[in-house]
Amino acid sequence: MLTSKPTLEVCLSPALLHLFSTKDTITVIIDVFRATSTIAAALDNGATKVIPVASVSECISIGQSIAHSITAGERDGKVAEGLEYGNSPSEYPVDFISGKTLVLTTTNGTRLLHMVNDASAIVTGSFPNLQAICDFLMAQNKNVVLACASWKDRFNLEDALFAGAVATIVAPHFTIHCDSALACMSLDDQAKGNYFEYLKRGAHYKRLSGYGLESDMIYCATPNIHPVVPILQGNELLVYKG
Amino acid sequence: MLTSKPTLEVCLSPALLHLFSTKDTITVIIDVFRATSTIAAALDNGATKVIPVASVSECISIGQSIAHSITAGERDGKVAEGLEYGNSPSEYPVDFISGKTLVLTTTNGTRLLHMVNDASAIVTGSFPNLQAICDFLMAQNKNVVLACASWKDRFNLEDALFAGAVATIVAPHFTIHCDSALACMSLDDQAKGNYFEYLKRGAHYKRLSGYGLESDMIYCATPNIHPVVPILQGNELLVYKG
Repeated sequence: MLTSKPTLEVCLSPALLHLFSTKDTITVIIDVFRATSTIAAALDNGATKVIPVASVSECISIGQSIAHSITAGERDGKVAEGLEYGNSPSEYPVDFISGKTLVLTTTNGTRLLHMVNDASAIVTGSFPNLQAICDFLMAQNKNVVLACASWKDRFNLEDALFAGAVATIVAPHFTIHCDSALACMSLDDQAKGNYFEYLKRGAHYKRLSGYGLESDMIYCATPNIHPVVPILQGNELLVYKG
Repeated sequence: MLTSKPTLEVCLSPALLHLFSTKDTITVIIDVFRATSTIAAALDNGATKVIPVASVSECISIGQSIAHSITAGERDGKVAEGLEYGNSPSEYPVDFISGKTLVLTTTNGTRLLHMVNDASAIVTGSFPNLQAICDFLMAQNKNVVLACASWKDRFNLEDALFAGAVATIVAPHFTIHCDSALACMSLDDQAKGNYFEYLKRGAHYKRLSGYGLESDMIYCATPNIHPVVPILQGNELLVYKG
């Protein structure tokens, strides 16, 4: 008996999201540099939850209302005024973040998280939790949309490369007729598993390395060091427990 | 003395065009399957001009007002009702089209042609006029936007691959900091010059081959068989004479 496989599609920019149906899908929000890398790091290192918020002022007010919370976020590569920490995954080791709530403001990733409201589940992915996301998608047997946060709606190489890495790994379990997904898989093929080297050509690498953040990008491009699936429950990202 | 090279960017969908400045650029409209391939074929084979129009009714009325004109366009892979010819480049050999005006309606390519109005020049490109477009861009020394017509605003593989082929050829003469362009160049690298084979994986190949149009796609993916630069003058595409 033939059973049809679920579909997998890639949305390359929030400005294209209206072309996709996210209803009843697993939607994976991707913001490799650096929101979804930092989320994986914080949750894997024991954060109780991560609350993604759009603005600095919201970050401050939510932080004030929650005990044991950390407010974090950057603007132009620096800790935003009024917040305590930045957006580097390396800032959240176990002995610092364990048992705490991270209230995180990011520009691109948070906006996209709030744009999807009809999915069966919304999870966040980046190279540090690549295989965990793939295992989750293969276990769910639902249609998938990989949604790239991009940079102010402009296509970016790192989110597309991660989408391609996911698509390549899960391809045997899905029907992939989406040209964006096929293109991303070509990028993955080009990278040959050396994600950071591939991403050095990108605009974001040039911008962040100008801020002295090269080590952050190496962290964000390192696969499977934080094998968790952050899943949105209400307005909070928690570790998916199965 | 250092002189800065002009920039080259790739817009992957008309829905992203607002993110780019086309002012004073050379903008290349790309609709490989099949509008901009057919335009190159018709003009190289001696058509006086090509008039791209959005609707079938407009196509009919303009056709009636011009002597020696041909009305052409398809909907769902068939000649649209009320029009005389289709959108296959092979329908326009020299002995048929020479000296005539082709009034052509296409969905995606025409719309994009009409969306850009502040460029220094608007030209149309596809594999049949790949090198001619590249030679033109390198001679002009202006900023370039390669604008993919896509498929109903969704990214498609063939337009992105052509953008990548152009970017790869002209790269030494341009500053390329655009992630879309870098990704398209990776697709070109993957295709290794065998464009048609690469495009067989795409959604458009599957749709058009379902209509029996595989030979059209081979035609559209064959480089440099129609070395002309179609340039928009008013509402008409003419051969650029230098």
